[in-house]
Amino acid sequence: MAYYVDEHIKNIQRVFPEQGRYNFLRYDMNENPEGLPVWFVEEVKESITPEYLAIYPEPDRFLAKYADYVGVPRDCVTCTNGTDQAIRYLLQTFCGQGHDVVTVTPSFEMYWVNCNILGLNHVPVAYNDDLSFNMQNLIDAITPNTDVVVLLNPNNPVGDAFSREDVVAAVEAARANDAVVIIDEAYHYFCPNTFIDLTQTYDNVIVMRTFSKLFSLAACRLGVIISNPQIIHYVNNTRLTFDVNALALLFGEKIIDHPELVDDLVAAEREGRAWTIETLQKRGWEARPSEGNFIFVRTHRPAGEVAADLEARGILVKSWGSGMLKDYLRVSTGSKAAMEKLVDALATVDAA
Amino acid sequence: MAYYVDEHIKNIQRVFPEQGRYNFLRYDMNENPEGLPVWFVEEVKESITPEYLAIYPEPDRFLAKYADYVGVPRDCVTCTNGTDQAIRYLLQTFCGQGHDVVTVTPSFEMYWVNCNILGLNHVPVAYNDDLSFNMQNLIDAITPNTDVVVLLNPNNPVGDAFSREDVVAAVEAARANDAVVIIDEAYHYFCPNTFIDLTQTYDNVIVMRTFSKLFSLAACRLGVIISNPQIIHYVNNTRLTFDVNALALLFGEKIIDHPELVDDLVAAEREGRAWTIETLQKRGWEARPSEGNFIFVRTHRPAGEVAADLEARGILVKSWGSGMLKDYLRVSTGSKAAMEKLVDALATVDAA
Repeated sequence: MAYYVDEHIKNIQRVFPEQGRYNFLRYDMNENPEGLPVWFVEEVKESITPEYLAIYPEPDRFLAKYADYVGVPRDCVTCTNGTDQAIRYLLQTFCGQGHDVVTVTPSFEMYWVNCNILGLNHVPVAYNDDLSFNMQNLIDAITPNTDVVVLLNPNNPVGDAFSREDVVAAVEAARANDAVVIIDEAYHYFCPNTFIDLTQTYDNVIVMRTFSKLFSLAACRLGVIISNPQIIHYVNNTRLTFDVNALALLFGEKIIDHPELVDDLVAAEREGRAWTIETLQKRGWEARPSEGNFIFVRTHRPAGEVAADLEARGILVKSWGSGMLKDYLRVSTGSKAAMEKLVDALATVDAA
Repeated sequence: MAYYVDEHIKNIQRVFPEQGRYNFLRYDMNENPEGLPVWFVEEVKESITPEYLAIYPEPDRFLAKYADYVGVPRDCVTCTNGTDQAIRYLLQTFCGQGHDVVTVTPSFEMYWVNCNILGLNHVPVAYNDDLSFNMQNLIDAITPNTDVVVLLNPNNPVGDAFSREDVVAAVEAARANDAVVIIDEAYHYFCPNTFIDLTQTYDNVIVMRTFSKLFSLAACRLGVIISNPQIIHYVNNTRLTFDVNALALLFGEKIIDHPELVDDLVAAEREGRAWTIETLQKRGWEARPSEGNFIFVRTHRPAGEVAADLEARGILVKSWGSGMLKDYLRVSTGSKAAMEKLVDALATVDAA
């Protein structure tokens, strides 16, 4: 028999992350290598009772706190099962079949993967060879066929942050073409600039935040969408009834209750990142800083071989077989203690 | 400006469940009113560490165990962020715009809600006035325009289970029209019959299971899809990269590690359900049994008023303003201890 299968879904080739990462030290996916303080996790766990587990999740209390936390009205936020789910909802809601999604490239791969799943036309706008980016190139790519423009700030994997002037220019170009702009702030906190305020002054701006990076809760799946009430209304029309699980909501709420924790996490990562760059440069590597919780290391030997040797020693880092970043490793950054292990191992397998 | 919004999403009217249910005794959404044993929850919580929380979820270990548990090959299962997400994936993958999704009615509302979100044509096939169902009516509704047929077994809210003969006849009728059949076994365990075996003998059968009902983990969001490798492959093409959170996977895996727990939960609910029906009937109510963890009580006063009075006393039950079930309350069933509270309250507000 030949049952119906959506043609885009039928033809896509999906690649899922390797499993079994629990047995490694992980510097490959921009997680916090260590995680939240033990006292905090133990405190939250007290609220995980049999009764709490049996009840369907309720996002409202978390969302009210979160709106306050980022300084927007309650009807300007909604939450999703990670930003993974937010990307799906936003593209499904705000882009028509065959219309354009304009992004920079390289950038986070799930934008083009979701374009392929949903039958949207991905328009990638390349960085320059020196890994700088001209916003005018992106603006030139926006046309009346553009429904969505995506900017990661800071961008992953390149690691640069966009200027306010550039982002406003892109938002206005999108607006002139009836397109919305998604600003993915997954790596906010590692880099202080934000464009949340633009969600309140333009009617076509959507900001995404995640609890997977600084907040160290990638296991939980908690993303937030911040925009104007009309756009949030449409996203809520699209969303599942029970989207974010109640444990993620619990951890997320408790993080907002402990803003001092955020400062501590930022300080620890910043110290670790600065120490790593300084140490690697002193010891003979080219180390590119970034505005996110990751850096780039230009290896002496081919990057893929170094990554494989590190993996054999129980350490995961990210490498690319080709493209602008093929000579680099991308290494997540955390506390100095976490980074010492990485630097020691790198010195062993990639001595100058 | 007029940004693009998908027309189906733009026009839908969504209704989300009331929040604030934590402060009530809950018999309205077929959750376990009490939840899992404390010893079990405490044991699982030992594995929730800062490091575990920081790492992106890995479904493979859970899925391997789950496939074993239900007796199918590993490539015949995948898991989703609750069956809420499974329904979305399945309809998005296996039904074309404007094609038909044939379901019984009344049934679980998220099938027609997802039809509306996705622009699919919902074909509801009604129960008889006495709440019996003729499978021939469903078979007659299957046409070449049908892409998906849905059966809940046992069906919610009616509570009846389908015979093997009827289900096989529906599967064969669907197959003759190139349609897939989703058999939603959310309420399995409360009723022992299952059609998982049909996923291995027909190429168009998909069974769904949830951890929200007997397994008492509605907060966690964990659903499973069981089918043949080709259908599972397509669902995996559709799915998010990180779908089920790692805490749900942890609790799910530990439940499979403790099959004796399943027997205990089944026994406690069955005792509570039988006791409730017997007691209500003795005390003058018409109480309809069901094959799920819920029963129907025909109230002496209008059902909506009784539900409101119970709510004022801190107890939630389900009622309908209209339709075949308008004279009934639907009441979730759990242990005898949990049900005594419900029966006492009902006796107060709806004395014969």
